[in-house]
Amino acid sequence: MTTTYDLVILGGGPGGFDAAVEAAGSGLKTALVEAAELGGTCLNRGCIPTKLWLGATDAVDELAAQAKMRVASGSVDIDFAALQSRKDKYLAATRKAMGQRLAQLGVDLVPGLGRIVQAGSLEVATADGPKTLGYRNLMVATGSRPGSFPGLQPDGDRVLDSTGLLGLTEMPKSLLVVGGGFIGLEMAQAAHRMGAKITLVDALPRLAGAEDPEVSKTLESVFKRQGWDLRLGVKVASVKTIGDEAVLVLDSADGVGEELHADLALIAVGRRPNSADLGLEALGATLNGAGYIQTDAQLLAAPNVSAVGDVNGRMLLAHAASHQAHYVVERLLGRTTKPYASGPVPSILYGAPEVFRAGVMAEEAKALGESVLVSRAQLIANPIAQAHAATHGFVKCVWRDGRIAGITAVGAGVSRLACFATLIIQQGWTREDASSFMFPHPTLDESLKAALLADKEAV
Amino acid sequence: MTTTYDLVILGGGPGGFDAAVEAAGSGLKTALVEAAELGGTCLNRGCIPTKLWLGATDAVDELAAQAKMRVASGSVDIDFAALQSRKDKYLAATRKAMGQRLAQLGVDLVPGLGRIVQAGSLEVATADGPKTLGYRNLMVATGSRPGSFPGLQPDGDRVLDSTGLLGLTEMPKSLLVVGGGFIGLEMAQAAHRMGAKITLVDALPRLAGAEDPEVSKTLESVFKRQGWDLRLGVKVASVKTIGDEAVLVLDSADGVGEELHADLALIAVGRRPNSADLGLEALGATLNGAGYIQTDAQLLAAPNVSAVGDVNGRMLLAHAASHQAHYVVERLLGRTTKPYASGPVPSILYGAPEVFRAGVMAEEAKALGESVLVSRAQLIANPIAQAHAATHGFVKCVWRDGRIAGITAVGAGVSRLACFATLIIQQGWTREDASSFMFPHPTLDESLKAALLADKEAV
Repeated sequence: MTTTYDLVILGGGPGGFDAAVEAAGSGLKTALVEAAELGGTCLNRGCIPTKLWLGATDAVDELAAQAKMRVASGSVDIDFAALQSRKDKYLAATRKAMGQRLAQLGVDLVPGLGRIVQAGSLEVATADGPKTLGYRNLMVATGSRPGSFPGLQPDGDRVLDSTGLLGLTEMPKSLLVVGGGFIGLEMAQAAHRMGAKITLVDALPRLAGAEDPEVSKTLESVFKRQGWDLRLGVKVASVKTIGDEAVLVLDSADGVGEELHADLALIAVGRRPNSADLGLEALGATLNGAGYIQTDAQLLAAPNVSAVGDVNGRMLLAHAASHQAHYVVERLLGRTTKPYASGPVPSILYGAPEVFRAGVMAEEAKALGESVLVSRAQLIANPIAQAHAATHGFVKCVWRDGRIAGITAVGAGVSRLACFATLIIQQGWTREDASSFMFPHPTLDESLKAALLADKEAV
Repeated sequence: MTTTYDLVILGGGPGGFDAAVEAAGSGLKTALVEAAELGGTCLNRGCIPTKLWLGATDAVDELAAQAKMRVASGSVDIDFAALQSRKDKYLAATRKAMGQRLAQLGVDLVPGLGRIVQAGSLEVATADGPKTLGYRNLMVATGSRPGSFPGLQPDGDRVLDSTGLLGLTEMPKSLLVVGGGFIGLEMAQAAHRMGAKITLVDALPRLAGAEDPEVSKTLESVFKRQGWDLRLGVKVASVKTIGDEAVLVLDSADGVGEELHADLALIAVGRRPNSADLGLEALGATLNGAGYIQTDAQLLAAPNVSAVGDVNGRMLLAHAASHQAHYVVERLLGRTTKPYASGPVPSILYGAPEVFRAGVMAEEAKALGESVLVSRAQLIANPIAQAHAATHGFVKCVWRDGRIAGITAVGAGVSRLACFATLIIQQGWTREDASSFMFPHPTLDESLKAALLADKEAV
């Protein structure tokens, strides 16, 4: 007998898991289909393990900053094997807790790969053979996986993707990082703190190419000072394991590019959606050229079929997935009939420096022909930045029609601005609103206050 | 010839300085009278130097936390003399920048002790003799100084107040701290990180007696684990320098109290207002029993005389002073006629753990007979707390009529919640508001989200 669920969710990452908890908690009969582990990329192969690496190695950076001021001396050595074991235990415990939560709420967890048979019916390839689930509503939250390009394929030997790097048992002495986006930068920082010599290559002319160009400049300046070899605006012809090395050949007009050697190479050149072979097209859903599932204003890909998170390509961030999932469940429960609105979406790069961004950036607005003003403050004027001897960075505000429309920041600890900054963008604060808010003193948050109250300049 | 100013400000601490900048920036003819250094207690003898100590020693704590997990090993040694020299240079540079800012804006800085002669006239004892200033409006922002009790007087030898401790050139091997409030706790933590054995005595039965009792319990548990000798709920009979030691005698019913010995003792038993000998009473202003200047709903102590900051006793916090100063200048400029409203005032204890609080606490509400509910989340469930191996602590929310009325938190890094939490209390968010806000993942801020969405319990 086939059970028919109010909601079947494909994928137990942040979007799918949160949707299952909320739907079941609100009385919907819910099944969650997961082909691998609960928690998805974020918990198992993404945000969480990288944060464990960065958190565990934070003392290295704090010490280095104070040592540069000659206020502290000493050394911090990371036991990488112990860190990996702690990480693995934490991830396992978290997965277990997630499973228990689902069980408590009466969610049916179906382990296996799901595929749509026809509208209203899904077949899951479980270990015990195929299992058919009926659904009134389907949520596709299958996420994404590391991408690669021809010549840039991880080989599992000396050339790894982020998943491979997170599974290491020994930290290499030297690491070639291909890709200067957030994944590459977080992993490179953690590896650097654990002693790896970093060479980073990106085809874009700047690090963190999606960020404000001034943010990129600050990142480049900090990492160069730390001794990273940055190769920006150069293409990679190939990366291969040769003997016990990763060998990267740069692209060159005359065909003989420079060779870079390291113990290991990390390929971090973006991600690809897990949208193939779901059987979605038969229901009328469409994938775009890159394979992302196209969704309408209600996040629907087809009648009664929603797609949330990485797989719809709107914003590849765990909290964006959770937010979309919350909306879909609210809509199923009849609590909203409005179209989905993300509002300003915060994004964070961890490490030292950190980067925070939400809302409209000046360059984006300019490209759209919008008239915006910017105001800014440097971290060097902030006493908490001074206390941590981490004064490189700034907060930059983007104003449209007298209201705050975007905020970005780079520097040690600036992720702490994220919630507040996102909220005041959402609420469209004026300079007056900011001047009457009581920022606690002394805080790094006052650098945001200073930026909000600074003179505005044309872009 | 006597110059008459639109505004004369007594005291160049956070309140007075901010008022001077804002008033002069808005075209008011302004004088600032300061008997000592620009920046007041906060910059020179309070918030800023303690944060420099804590920031500089942060690696010690981060390393200790990871070492306990056996993920890191090593040592961090602080060069206290170098730290003090860096602190002194930073403070001097900041004072200089403040002076330049005042000069740019055309504020007359008058160094010396000011005293009211009669309504509209002030005499300043400057180094060049007495100088008379006329005023249309006077702002008293004279701040506070360390307090003491009989038997608990700093002697400048082995028994110091916070000012004395901040001026040391060598960190003691052992420190007796009398007073478990924020000043005592921040200084004790910094000293502990620099190797001092800490003994802390307070007459109150718990640390940070102004905070939620559960916060106190967490602080006590963390500091005990760090090896502090906590003597709570015991009174001090005397503290004296004897030879090259500080000797503290505990109060005892039978007259023979236990003796505690250390290299140094810090007396941190609260603060006293700098309100004597200002000549305020002649204008009709009144001081309360503790010496604080009484102010009305417009922060006026007498006609055309406002009092802001520590000296009015409303809230001894730098940002409260700045906020009050902003209001007074706005009122002088005719931009507001409303009574002063502080809104929820955030307060922060730095160190590890940190403490944050804003709005109404459960025990306060209970004492007033108000009906409130609480909801909470433990930091151990947060991945960033896990990454820093600092999982001891929680976030606690207080709800009144379905709206958030207060938030407190204790744990490593919880000060980052301050601005956002203060704002949502001010705006009286409901649980629904919180559930639709996109908290970035993973962040420590999600512990606030978890607390906001947790089941509510009666107090």
